[in-house]
Amino acid sequence: MDIAILGGTGDIGEGLALRLAADTRHDILIGSRDTEKAETKAEEYTTELDSRGLDREVTGFENVAAAERADVVVLAVPPYHVGDTVEAVADALDDGDILVSPATGMKRDDDGFHYHKPGAGSVTQIVAGAAPDDVAVVGAFHNLAAARLANLDAELGIDTLVIGDDEDAKGIVTDIAEGIDGLRALDAGGVANAPEIEAVTPLLINVGSNNEGLHDLGIRFT
Amino acid sequence: MDIAILGGTGDIGEGLALRLAADTRHDILIGSRDTEKAETKAEEYTTELDSRGLDREVTGFENVAAAERADVVVLAVPPYHVGDTVEAVADALDDGDILVSPATGMKRDDDGFHYHKPGAGSVTQIVAGAAPDDVAVVGAFHNLAAARLANLDAELGIDTLVIGDDEDAKGIVTDIAEGIDGLRALDAGGVANAPEIEAVTPLLINVGSNNEGLHDLGIRFT
Repeated sequence: MDIAILGGTGDIGEGLALRLAADTRHDILIGSRDTEKAETKAEEYTTELDSRGLDREVTGFENVAAAERADVVVLAVPPYHVGDTVEAVADALDDGDILVSPATGMKRDDDGFHYHKPGAGSVTQIVAGAAPDDVAVVGAFHNLAAARLANLDAELGIDTLVIGDDEDAKGIVTDIAEGIDGLRALDAGGVANAPEIEAVTPLLINVGSNNEGLHDLGIRFT
Repeated sequence: MDIAILGGTGDIGEGLALRLAADTRHDILIGSRDTEKAETKAEEYTTELDSRGLDREVTGFENVAAAERADVVVLAVPPYHVGDTVEAVADALDDGDILVSPATGMKRDDDGFHYHKPGAGSVTQIVAGAAPDDVAVVGAFHNLAAARLANLDAELGIDTLVIGDDEDAKGIVTDIAEGIDGLRALDAGGVANAPEIEAVTPLLINVGSNNEGLHDLGIRFT
Protein backbone atom coordinates (compact mmCIF):
# COMPACT_ATOMS: atom_id res chain seq x y z
CA MET A 1 0.00 0.00 0.00
CA ASP A 2 1.19 3.56 -0.68
CA ILE A 3 1.06 5.71 2.42
CA ALA A 4 1.62 9.47 2.17
CA ILE A 5 2.59 11.32 5.30
CA LEU A 6 1.75 14.98 4.75
CA GLY A 7 3.80 17.10 7.10
CA GLY A 8 6.17 14.18 7.03
CA THR A 9 9.10 16.51 7.59
CA GLY A 10 7.79 17.37 11.10
CA ASP A 11 8.49 15.43 14.26
CA ILE A 12 5.49 13.11 14.41
CA GLY A 13 5.69 12.65 10.64
CA GLU A 14 9.32 11.61 10.93
CA GLY A 15 8.49 9.08 13.64
CA LEU A 16 5.64 7.55 11.65
CA ALA A 17 7.66 7.46 8.43
CA LEU A 18 10.64 5.74 10.04
CA ARG A 19 8.56 3.19 11.95
CA LEU A 20 6.32 2.34 9.00
CA ALA A 21 9.30 2.06 6.67
CA ALA A 22 11.29 -0.03 9.15
CA ASP A 23 8.54 -2.39 10.28
CA THR A 24 6.17 -2.75 7.29
CA ARG A 25 6.37 -3.30 3.52
CA HIS A 26 4.23 -0.29 2.65
CA ASP A 27 5.70 2.39 0.40
CA ILE A 28 6.19 5.57 2.41
CA LEU A 29 5.87 8.96 0.72
CA ILE A 30 6.82 12.13 2.56
CA GLY A 31 4.71 15.17 1.75
CA SER A 32 5.51 18.79 2.44
CA ARG A 33 4.37 22.13 1.05
CA ASP A 34 8.02 22.50 0.02
CA THR A 35 9.12 19.82 -2.47
CA GLU A 36 12.82 20.26 -1.77
CA LYS A 37 12.29 19.92 1.99
CA ALA A 38 10.28 16.75 1.41
CA GLU A 39 13.02 15.28 -0.79
CA THR A 40 15.79 16.20 1.64
CA LYS A 41 13.96 14.70 4.60
CA ALA A 42 13.04 11.57 2.66
CA GLU A 43 16.72 11.11 1.84
CA GLU A 44 17.61 11.55 5.52
CA TYR A 45 15.11 8.88 6.50
CA THR A 46 16.38 6.55 3.78
CA THR A 47 19.95 7.04 5.05
CA GLU A 48 18.85 6.40 8.65
CA LEU A 49 17.12 3.18 7.59
CA ASP A 50 20.13 2.14 5.49
CA SER A 51 22.44 2.68 8.48
CA ARG A 52 20.37 0.03 10.26
CA GLY A 53 20.71 -2.40 7.38
CA LEU A 54 17.20 -1.69 6.15
CA ASP A 55 17.02 -1.42 2.37
CA ARG A 56 13.98 0.85 2.24
CA GLU A 57 13.61 3.98 0.16
CA VAL A 58 11.40 6.75 1.46
CA THR A 59 10.49 9.29 -1.23
CA GLY A 60 9.59 12.99 -0.98
CA PHE A 61 6.98 15.05 -2.83
CA GLU A 62 4.97 18.22 -2.57
CA ASN A 63 1.79 17.43 -0.55
CA VAL A 64 -0.53 17.21 -3.57
CA ALA A 65 1.80 14.92 -5.51
CA ALA A 66 2.22 12.72 -2.45
CA ALA A 67 -1.55 12.52 -1.92
CA GLU A 68 -2.06 11.71 -5.60
CA ARG A 69 0.19 8.66 -5.39
CA ALA A 70 -1.15 7.34 -2.09
CA ASP A 71 -3.99 5.09 -0.97
CA VAL A 72 -3.75 6.29 2.61
CA VAL A 73 -2.93 9.90 3.47
CA VAL A 74 -1.80 10.76 7.00
CA LEU A 75 -2.30 14.40 8.01
CA ALA A 76 0.75 14.84 10.25
CA VAL A 77 0.38 18.61 10.22
CA PRO A 78 -0.40 21.04 13.05
CA PRO A 79 -4.12 21.19 13.92
CA TYR A 80 -4.53 24.70 12.56
CA HIS A 81 -3.28 23.54 9.13
CA VAL A 82 -5.43 20.42 8.95
CA GLY A 83 -8.45 21.98 7.24
CA ASP A 84 -6.35 23.82 4.65
CA THR A 85 -4.26 20.76 3.97
CA VAL A 86 -7.31 18.61 3.27
CA GLU A 87 -8.68 21.28 0.92
CA ALA A 88 -5.32 21.55 -0.86
CA VAL A 89 -5.13 17.81 -1.60
CA ALA A 90 -8.86 17.06 -2.01
CA ASP A 91 -8.76 16.89 -5.80
CA ALA A 92 -5.78 14.53 -5.66
CA LEU A 93 -7.69 11.94 -3.66
CA ASP A 94 -9.44 9.02 -5.34
CA ASP A 95 -12.66 7.43 -4.21
CA GLY A 96 -11.74 4.83 -1.63
CA ASP A 97 -8.65 6.64 -0.42
CA ILE A 98 -8.39 7.10 3.32
CA LEU A 99 -7.46 10.23 5.26
CA VAL A 100 -5.86 9.59 8.65
CA SER A 101 -5.94 12.29 11.34
CA PRO A 102 -3.35 12.10 14.15
CA ALA A 103 -3.33 15.79 15.18
CA THR A 104 -4.64 17.27 18.40
CA GLY A 105 -5.13 20.85 19.54
CA MET A 106 -3.33 21.95 22.68
CA LYS A 107 -2.76 25.13 24.62
CA ARG A 108 -0.40 25.70 27.49
CA ASP A 109 -0.74 27.64 30.73
CA ASP A 110 1.16 27.74 34.02
CA ASP A 111 -0.26 24.38 35.10
CA GLY A 112 0.60 22.49 31.97
CA PHE A 113 -0.90 21.50 28.67
CA HIS A 114 -4.61 21.38 27.99
CA TYR A 115 -6.80 20.07 25.25
CA HIS A 116 -7.87 22.90 23.01
CA LYS A 117 -11.11 21.54 21.62
CA PRO A 118 -11.89 22.95 18.17
CA GLY A 119 -15.32 24.37 17.47
CA ALA A 120 -16.02 21.38 15.23
CA GLY A 121 -15.66 19.10 18.26
CA SER A 122 -12.27 17.59 17.46
CA VAL A 123 -9.47 17.80 14.91
CA THR A 124 -10.60 14.46 13.51
CA GLN A 125 -14.05 16.00 13.02
CA ILE A 126 -12.51 18.92 11.11
CA VAL A 127 -10.98 16.40 8.73
CA ALA A 128 -14.28 14.54 8.41
CA GLY A 129 -16.01 17.82 7.60
CA ALA A 130 -13.46 18.81 4.94
CA ALA A 131 -12.94 15.40 3.29
CA PRO A 132 -14.43 14.73 -0.15
CA ASP A 133 -17.31 12.25 -0.36
CA ASP A 134 -16.11 8.68 -0.81
CA VAL A 135 -12.90 9.41 1.08
CA ALA A 136 -13.13 7.83 4.51
CA VAL A 137 -11.66 9.55 7.56
CA VAL A 138 -9.98 7.62 10.34
CA GLY A 139 -8.43 9.03 13.51
CA ALA A 140 -5.27 7.26 14.67
CA PHE A 141 -1.72 7.81 16.00
CA HIS A 142 -2.89 10.68 18.28
CA ASN A 143 -1.07 9.88 21.46
CA LEU A 144 2.39 8.88 20.30
CA ALA A 145 5.54 10.66 21.48
CA ALA A 146 7.35 11.83 18.36
CA ALA A 147 10.89 11.45 19.70
CA ARG A 148 10.21 7.92 20.90
CA LEU A 149 8.76 6.93 17.53
CA ALA A 150 11.68 8.46 15.66
CA ASN A 151 14.23 6.62 17.78
CA LEU A 152 14.12 3.15 16.27
CA ASP A 153 16.05 1.80 19.26
CA ALA A 154 13.20 2.74 21.60
CA GLU A 155 10.73 0.00 22.41
CA LEU A 156 7.07 0.91 22.18
CA GLY A 157 4.78 -1.52 23.98
CA ILE A 158 1.98 1.02 23.75
CA ASP A 159 -1.47 1.44 22.23
CA THR A 160 -2.95 3.70 19.61
CA LEU A 161 -6.69 4.27 19.40
CA VAL A 162 -8.46 4.08 16.06
CA ILE A 163 -11.77 5.82 15.38
CA GLY A 164 -13.89 6.22 12.31
CA ASP A 165 -17.37 5.82 10.90
CA ASP A 166 -16.27 3.55 8.02
CA GLU A 167 -15.46 0.12 9.41
CA ASP A 168 -13.50 -1.03 6.34
CA ALA A 169 -11.26 2.02 6.42
CA LYS A 170 -10.80 1.61 10.16
CA GLY A 171 -9.74 -1.99 9.58
CA ILE A 172 -7.14 -0.95 7.00
CA VAL A 173 -5.67 1.71 9.29
CA THR A 174 -5.71 -0.74 12.21
CA ASP A 175 -3.66 -3.20 10.14
CA ILE A 176 -1.21 -0.47 9.14
CA ALA A 177 -0.79 0.64 12.75
CA GLU A 178 -0.31 -2.89 14.03
CA GLY A 179 2.42 -3.34 11.44
CA ILE A 180 4.58 -1.17 13.68
CA ASP A 181 6.40 -3.38 16.18
CA GLY A 182 5.15 -2.87 19.71
CA LEU A 183 2.13 -0.82 18.72
CA ARG A 184 -1.32 -2.23 19.44
CA ALA A 185 -4.28 -0.59 17.71
CA LEU A 186 -7.56 -0.56 19.62
CA ASP A 187 -10.97 0.38 18.30
CA ALA A 188 -12.44 3.38 20.12
CA GLY A 189 -15.62 3.74 18.07
CA GLY A 190 -16.76 6.52 15.75
CA VAL A 191 -15.38 9.95 14.89
CA ALA A 192 -17.64 11.45 17.58
CA ASN A 193 -15.40 9.77 20.17
CA ALA A 194 -12.34 11.76 19.06
CA PRO A 195 -12.26 14.50 21.74
CA GLU A 196 -11.47 12.12 24.61
CA ILE A 197 -8.65 10.59 22.53
CA GLU A 198 -7.16 13.88 21.41
CA ALA A 199 -7.27 15.08 25.06
CA VAL A 200 -4.90 12.28 26.10
CA THR A 201 -1.96 13.96 24.33
CA PRO A 202 -1.72 16.97 26.70
CA LEU A 203 -2.28 14.59 29.61
CA LEU A 204 0.74 12.51 28.57
CA ILE A 205 2.85 15.67 28.50
CA ASN A 206 1.62 16.72 31.97
CA VAL A 207 2.35 13.31 33.45
CA GLY A 208 5.78 13.26 31.80
CA SER A 209 6.71 16.69 33.11
CA ASN A 210 5.62 15.98 36.70
CA ASN A 211 7.29 12.61 37.29
CA GLU A 212 11.01 12.13 37.27
CA GLY A 213 12.22 9.44 34.94
CA LEU A 214 9.06 9.42 32.83
CA HIS A 215 9.21 11.08 29.45
CA ASP A 216 8.02 10.47 25.90
CA LEU A 217 5.18 8.57 27.49
CA GLY A 218 2.68 6.39 25.75
CA ILE A 219 -0.48 4.80 27.00
CA ARG A 220 -1.46 1.21 27.49
CA PHE A 221 -4.99 -0.01 28.15
CA THR A 222 -4.87 -2.96 30.49
CA MET B 1 -4.92 7.41 59.13
CA ASP B 2 -8.73 7.56 59.12
CA ILE B 3 -10.15 7.58 55.61
CA ALA B 4 -13.84 8.27 55.05
CA ILE B 5 -15.36 7.19 51.77
CA LEU B 6 -18.53 9.20 51.28
CA GLY B 7 -20.80 7.41 48.86
CA GLY B 8 -18.94 4.34 50.06
CA THR B 9 -22.01 2.22 49.44
CA GLY B 10 -21.75 2.83 45.68
CA ASP B 11 -19.67 0.84 43.24
CA ILE B 12 -16.46 2.87 43.12
CA GLY B 13 -16.75 3.45 46.87
CA GLU B 14 -16.99 -0.28 47.46
CA GLY B 15 -13.92 -0.94 45.36
CA LEU B 16 -11.84 1.69 47.13
CA ALA B 17 -13.02 0.59 50.57
CA LEU B 18 -12.20 -3.07 49.95
CA ARG B 19 -8.80 -2.38 48.37
CA LEU B 20 -7.73 0.14 51.03
CA ALA B 21 -8.91 -2.13 53.83
CA ALA B 22 -7.25 -5.19 52.30
CA ASP B 23 -3.92 -3.64 51.33
CA THR B 24 -3.28 -0.86 53.86
CA ARG B 25 -3.48 -0.31 57.61
CA HIS B 26 -5.67 2.79 57.37
CA ASP B 27 -9.04 2.79 59.13
CA ILE B 28 -11.78 2.82 56.53
CA LEU B 29 -15.09 4.54 57.28
CA ILE B 30 -18.03 4.20 54.91
CA GLY B 31 -20.23 7.27 54.61
CA SER B 32 -23.75 7.46 53.21
CA ARG B 33 -26.65 9.86 53.55
CA ASP B 34 -28.42 6.85 55.07
CA THR B 35 -26.76 5.63 58.28
CA GLU B 36 -28.34 2.19 58.13
CA LYS B 37 -27.21 1.66 54.54
CA ALA B 38 -23.67 2.68 55.51
CA GLU B 39 -23.64 0.26 58.44
CA THR B 40 -25.04 -2.60 56.35
CA LYS B 41 -22.51 -2.09 53.55
CA ALA B 42 -19.63 -1.72 56.01
CA GLU B 43 -20.63 -5.05 57.53
CA GLU B 44 -20.73 -6.64 54.07
CA TYR B 45 -17.23 -5.37 53.34
CA THR B 46 -15.98 -6.60 56.71
CA THR B 47 -17.47 -10.03 55.99
CA GLU B 48 -15.88 -10.09 52.53
CA LEU B 49 -12.49 -9.22 54.03
CA ASP B 50 -12.94 -11.80 56.78
CA SER B 51 -13.73 -14.48 54.19
CA ARG B 52 -10.26 -13.81 52.79
CA GLY B 53 -8.65 -14.17 56.19
CA LEU B 54 -8.27 -10.41 56.59
CA ASP B 55 -9.10 -9.27 60.11
CA ARG B 56 -10.17 -5.73 59.14
CA GLU B 57 -13.27 -3.95 60.34
CA VAL B 58 -14.84 -1.39 58.05
CA THR B 59 -17.32 0.86 59.84
CA GLY B 60 -20.37 2.75 58.55
CA PHE B 61 -21.69 6.24 59.38
CA GLU B 62 -23.87 9.00 58.07
CA ASN B 63 -21.69 11.19 55.78
CA VAL B 64 -21.21 14.00 58.32
CA ALA B 65 -20.25 11.61 61.11
CA ALA B 66 -17.81 9.83 58.79
CA ALA B 67 -16.22 13.11 57.69
CA GLU B 68 -15.94 14.23 61.32
CA ARG B 69 -13.89 11.17 62.23
CA ALA B 70 -11.64 11.20 59.16
CA ASP B 71 -8.39 12.87 58.15
CA VAL B 72 -8.97 12.15 54.48
CA VAL B 73 -12.44 12.28 52.94
CA VAL B 74 -13.02 10.66 49.55
CA LEU B 75 -16.03 11.98 47.61
CA ALA B 76 -17.12 8.77 45.89
CA VAL B 77 -20.47 10.27 44.95
CA PRO B 78 -21.97 11.04 41.52
CA PRO B 79 -20.65 14.31 40.03
CA TYR B 80 -23.99 16.09 40.42
CA HIS B 81 -23.93 15.41 44.19
CA VAL B 82 -20.33 16.47 44.74
CA GLY B 83 -21.00 20.15 45.49
CA ASP B 84 -23.88 19.41 47.89
CA THR B 85 -21.90 16.70 49.63
CA VAL B 86 -18.97 19.03 50.29
CA GLU B 87 -21.35 21.66 51.68
CA ALA B 88 -23.07 19.07 53.87
CA VAL B 89 -19.84 17.94 55.50
CA ALA B 90 -17.89 21.24 55.45
CA ASP B 91 -18.43 22.01 59.14
CA ALA B 92 -17.28 18.51 60.07
CA LEU B 93 -13.88 19.00 58.45
CA ASP B 94 -10.86 20.13 60.48
CA ASP B 95 -8.08 22.35 59.23
CA GLY B 96 -5.57 20.09 57.53
CA ASP B 97 -8.12 17.49 56.47
CA ILE B 98 -7.98 16.49 52.81
CA LEU B 99 -10.86 16.13 50.37
CA VAL B 100 -10.25 13.65 47.56
CA SER B 101 -12.25 13.89 44.32
CA PRO B 102 -12.50 10.77 42.11
CA ALA B 103 -15.72 11.63 40.25
CA THR B 104 -16.09 12.52 36.60
CA GLY B 105 -19.03 13.79 34.56
CA MET B 106 -20.13 11.71 31.59
CA LYS B 107 -22.91 11.70 29.08
CA ARG B 108 -23.80 9.01 26.59
CA ASP B 109 -24.90 9.14 22.99
CA ASP B 110 -25.12 6.63 20.14
CA ASP B 111 -21.34 6.62 19.68
CA GLY B 112 -20.42 6.02 23.26
CA PHE B 113 -19.56 7.90 26.40
CA HIS B 114 -18.25 11.44 26.44
CA TYR B 115 -16.75 13.71 29.01
CA HIS B 116 -19.39 16.11 30.30
CA LYS B 117 -17.22 19.00 31.39
CA PRO B 118 -18.84 20.98 34.23
CA GLY B 119 -19.09 24.75 33.97
CA ALA B 120 -16.46 25.03 36.71
CA GLY B 121 -13.98 23.25 34.41
CA SER B 122 -13.91 19.88 36.14
CA VAL B 123 -15.50 17.97 38.99
CA THR B 124 -12.26 18.33 40.95
CA GLN B 125 -12.55 22.10 40.47
CA ILE B 126 -16.12 22.02 41.83
CA VAL B 127 -14.74 20.42 44.98
CA ALA B 128 -11.91 22.97 45.17
CA GLY B 129 -14.49 25.76 44.87
CA ALA B 130 -16.73 24.35 47.60
CA ALA B 131 -14.06 23.22 50.08
CA PRO B 132 -13.50 25.22 53.27
CA ASP B 133 -10.25 27.19 53.59
CA ASP B 134 -7.44 25.09 55.08
CA VAL B 135 -8.92 21.90 53.64
CA ALA B 136 -6.80 20.80 50.70
CA VAL B 137 -8.38 19.24 47.62
CA VAL B 138 -6.72 16.44 45.71
CA GLY B 139 -8.00 14.68 42.61
CA ALA B 140 -7.27 10.95 42.46
CA PHE B 141 -8.80 7.54 41.65
CA HIS B 142 -10.64 8.93 38.60
CA ASN B 143 -10.00 6.23 36.06
CA LEU B 144 -10.48 3.02 37.98
CA ALA B 145 -13.02 0.40 36.97
CA ALA B 146 -15.25 -0.18 39.98
CA ALA B 147 -15.91 -3.87 39.38
CA ARG B 148 -12.22 -4.62 38.98
CA LEU B 149 -11.36 -2.79 42.19
CA ALA B 150 -14.10 -4.55 44.10
CA ASN B 151 -12.93 -7.97 42.95
CA LEU B 152 -9.96 -8.55 45.22
CA ASP B 153 -8.86 -11.47 43.00
CA ALA B 154 -8.35 -9.10 40.06
CA GLU B 155 -4.81 -7.86 39.52
CA LEU B 156 -4.44 -4.16 38.89
CA GLY B 157 -1.07 -3.20 37.37
CA ILE B 158 -2.51 0.20 36.51
CA ASP B 159 -1.95 3.86 37.28
CA THR B 160 -3.97 6.54 38.98
CA LEU B 161 -3.23 10.22 38.42
CA VAL B 162 -3.01 12.59 41.36
CA ILE B 163 -3.56 16.33 41.03
CA GLY B 164 -3.73 19.15 43.50
CA ASP B 165 -2.39 22.57 44.37
CA ASP B 166 -1.17 21.55 47.86
CA GLU B 167 1.95 19.43 47.49
CA ASP B 168 1.80 18.00 51.03
CA ALA B 169 -1.78 16.85 50.60
CA LYS B 170 -0.92 15.41 47.21
CA GLY B 171 1.94 13.48 48.80
CA ILE B 172 -0.37 12.02 51.45
CA VAL B 173 -2.94 10.92 48.87
CA THR B 174 -0.18 9.51 46.66
CA ASP B 175 1.03 7.37 49.59
CA ILE B 176 -2.51 6.18 50.28
CA ALA B 177 -3.06 5.27 46.63
CA GLU B 178 0.24 3.44 46.34
CA GLY B 179 -0.72 1.42 49.40
CA ILE B 180 -3.10 -0.45 47.09
CA ASP B 181 -1.27 -3.41 45.55
CA GLY B 182 -0.69 -2.94 41.84
CA LEU B 183 -1.71 0.71 41.78
CA ARG B 184 0.92 3.29 40.85
CA ALA B 185 0.14 6.94 41.61
CA LEU B 186 1.57 9.50 39.21
CA ASP B 187 1.67 13.26 39.68
CA ALA B 188 -0.28 15.07 36.97
CA GLY B 189 0.15 18.61 38.32
CA GLY B 190 -2.42 21.06 39.67
CA VAL B 191 -6.21 21.04 39.90
CA ALA B 192 -6.34 22.93 36.58
CA ASN B 193 -5.14 19.73 34.89
CA ALA B 194 -8.23 17.79 36.00
CA PRO B 195 -10.31 17.91 32.77
CA GLU B 196 -7.91 15.76 30.75
CA ILE B 197 -7.84 13.20 33.57
CA GLU B 198 -11.58 13.09 34.10
CA ALA B 199 -12.02 12.67 30.31
CA VAL B 200 -10.10 9.39 30.40
CA THR B 201 -12.96 7.63 32.17
CA PRO B 202 -15.43 7.74 29.23
CA LEU B 203 -12.53 6.83 26.92
CA LEU B 204 -11.86 3.66 28.94
CA ILE B 205 -15.52 2.70 28.60
CA ASN B 206 -15.46 3.33 24.83
CA VAL B 207 -12.33 1.25 24.36
CA GLY B 208 -13.75 -1.52 26.52
CA SER B 209 -17.01 -1.65 24.61
CA ASN B 210 -15.37 -1.72 21.16
CA ASN B 211 -12.74 -4.42 21.69
CA GLU B 212 -13.60 -7.99 22.45
CA GLY B 213 -11.94 -9.37 25.54
CA LEU B 214 -11.17 -5.97 27.02
CA HIS B 215 -13.33 -4.78 29.86
CA ASP B 216 -12.96 -3.02 33.21
CA LEU B 217 -9.94 -1.37 31.66
CA GLY B 218 -7.35 0.70 33.43
CA ILE B 219 -4.60 2.82 32.07
CA ARG B 220 -0.84 2.52 32.31
CA PHE B 221 1.60 5.24 31.37
CA THR B 222 4.68 3.69 29.85
